[in-house]
Amino acid sequence: MNKQVLLAQRPSGMLKETDFSIVEKSIPALEENEVLVQIEYISLDPAMRGWMNAGTTYIRGVEIGEVMRAFAAGTVVDSKHPGFLKGDAVTGTMGAQSFAVMQGKHLTKVDATKVPLSWYVGILGMPGLTAYFGLLDKGMPKAGETVLVSGAAGMVGSVVGQIAKIKGCSVIGIAGGKDKCEVLLKDFGFDAAIDYKSTENIGKAIKELAPNGIDVYFDNVGGTILDAALLNLAMNARVVICGAISQYNATEVQGIKNYMKLISARGTMSGIIVFDYFPRATEALVDLSKWLTEGKIVYKEHVVEGLDHFANTLQMLFTGANTGKLVIKV
Amino acid sequence: MNKQVLLAQRPSGMLKETDFSIVEKSIPALEENEVLVQIEYISLDPAMRGWMNAGTTYIRGVEIGEVMRAFAAGTVVDSKHPGFLKGDAVTGTMGAQSFAVMQGKHLTKVDATKVPLSWYVGILGMPGLTAYFGLLDKGMPKAGETVLVSGAAGMVGSVVGQIAKIKGCSVIGIAGGKDKCEVLLKDFGFDAAIDYKSTENIGKAIKELAPNGIDVYFDNVGGTILDAALLNLAMNARVVICGAISQYNATEVQGIKNYMKLISARGTMSGIIVFDYFPRATEALVDLSKWLTEGKIVYKEHVVEGLDHFANTLQMLFTGANTGKLVIKV
Repeated sequence: MNKQVLLAQRPSGMLKETDFSIVEKSIPALEENEVLVQIEYISLDPAMRGWMNAGTTYIRGVEIGEVMRAFAAGTVVDSKHPGFLKGDAVTGTMGAQSFAVMQGKHLTKVDATKVPLSWYVGILGMPGLTAYFGLLDKGMPKAGETVLVSGAAGMVGSVVGQIAKIKGCSVIGIAGGKDKCEVLLKDFGFDAAIDYKSTENIGKAIKELAPNGIDVYFDNVGGTILDAALLNLAMNARVVICGAISQYNATEVQGIKNYMKLISARGTMSGIIVFDYFPRATEALVDLSKWLTEGKIVYKEHVVEGLDHFANTLQMLFTGANTGKLVIKV
Repeated sequence: MNKQVLLAQRPSGMLKETDFSIVEKSIPALEENEVLVQIEYISLDPAMRGWMNAGTTYIRGVEIGEVMRAFAAGTVVDSKHPGFLKGDAVTGTMGAQSFAVMQGKHLTKVDATKVPLSWYVGILGMPGLTAYFGLLDKGMPKAGETVLVSGAAGMVGSVVGQIAKIKGCSVIGIAGGKDKCEVLLKDFGFDAAIDYKSTENIGKAIKELAPNGIDVYFDNVGGTILDAALLNLAMNARVVICGAISQYNATEVQGIKNYMKLISARGTMSGIIVFDYFPRATEALVDLSKWLTEGKIVYKEHVVEGLDHFANTLQMLFTGANTGKLVIKV
């Protein structure tokens, strides 16, 4: 039987456990070119909150009653596709469920003999690519520049900061709580950390740490932190909008007031959509694997066991309860 | 005697006549390299509201008691600089006054025999360069694309729209009132106009006129109109922030809520500061002069006579009472 997490209703405000339901379904027989995958790791990502809404943004919303969209990694247990054999490790957008029947063309084979399979939904998966291309292609950091990243203890933020360090930048991270800030400095090698929960004036805190301004701001959170960062842009600054986790559960989105600072700083603001970089994925995977091997990137996972915990684990992303990549082990 | 408009106090909210005072002062004798200019035309620009505030953005604020900063055109009446002779037509940041003693290096000689002198504070001055480089260098419009411009009946907006037409784009203008919208369609050759004063849902109005989205949005106004435009970005759209006239007199700035649309549209948002383009001014002046001569650009001025009317004339910019370039004839 296949245990599935379905979208039960569209959340209003903060997502609730009752927004999802769990069902068991029998697994249909495979048709030509299909592959049956036993899912082992499910990636939990901030973007999921947006997928729960109606309508289409960069991707269509999940329908009520549909299996929740999720990126996952697993092992082939049956195949009617010539490219896949039983035992192959694969990744794909397989959904929040214990088994998936997939078209072979929608799966990617990965090598799970050298690194843990779970890494392919994180540092060697979409979030890793997001951090890599968002920082390097959109942020274009140069050695000696100052990079500010919010959501810095999260999967994307922690990798952005570490890549920026590799590129010779001075790196400031913003995270929630003393423990996370400790992790930024001790484990991830950031130069400075701002605890937004205990800092009254974030704009002032940034100014003290970067009196000459921020050259690259990588934004995972939106809201007041984005506004504080805009106030502190250096000339020709690049603002990379990756997400706005502070706003995803908001019933009324908080507008940004300091965008005019883009004019006086001759700055640019643009977004990163990782899908656009899939054709260039190899570039990122080669570099990231090398940096992981060399110990230049420290990768932290936060693993929760059991699909039954899908909803309350997903909530952790928005309450800030996780440090590192949040994954469900099925 | 020199009549001068001084900044009397910093405005709070909408600027008032009492924020300025008018004085008469004797004109000092010229020192070496100085030039005495009789000012004929004073440019009134939205940016002036920002210059009235304390502190430095892209330029320092005017001090209390100082002559109000203004771009102006006039005629040399005395010179101790070898490059200027009595009778030369000149432009420069000469301030809101009837005479200016200027360092010669801060003046630009212009040819007022072929076009009116007043054009050099408008279409052949900073606002013209702002429109030209903001649209072409930052907006990068391509033939067949759709360009949206707000503040479209104003100096910068009307020229942006007309240049976009010259470049083969479809052009939609947003302006306040039926008369201004008529001018956009009849005089400036825009393809469509939205009267924001009588349109309840500007986002919907844009969508109806540009169902495939906006490729370039040139923003002069900020606020709800910017937010409505962001909702309607086409893929790879360029948002050029030139100003935010709806916000300059606001005591509380209105945040923009739809900036996340930059992500899904793979858009970029950046600002235009005309000073950065002074080294390339000739490019713009050659093109603009040619287009004016060929009748491809229609240039409208709104001339008010007398320095005594400085304050209430400047207010017109923010109440939307002018169509075309607002100029004071001294």
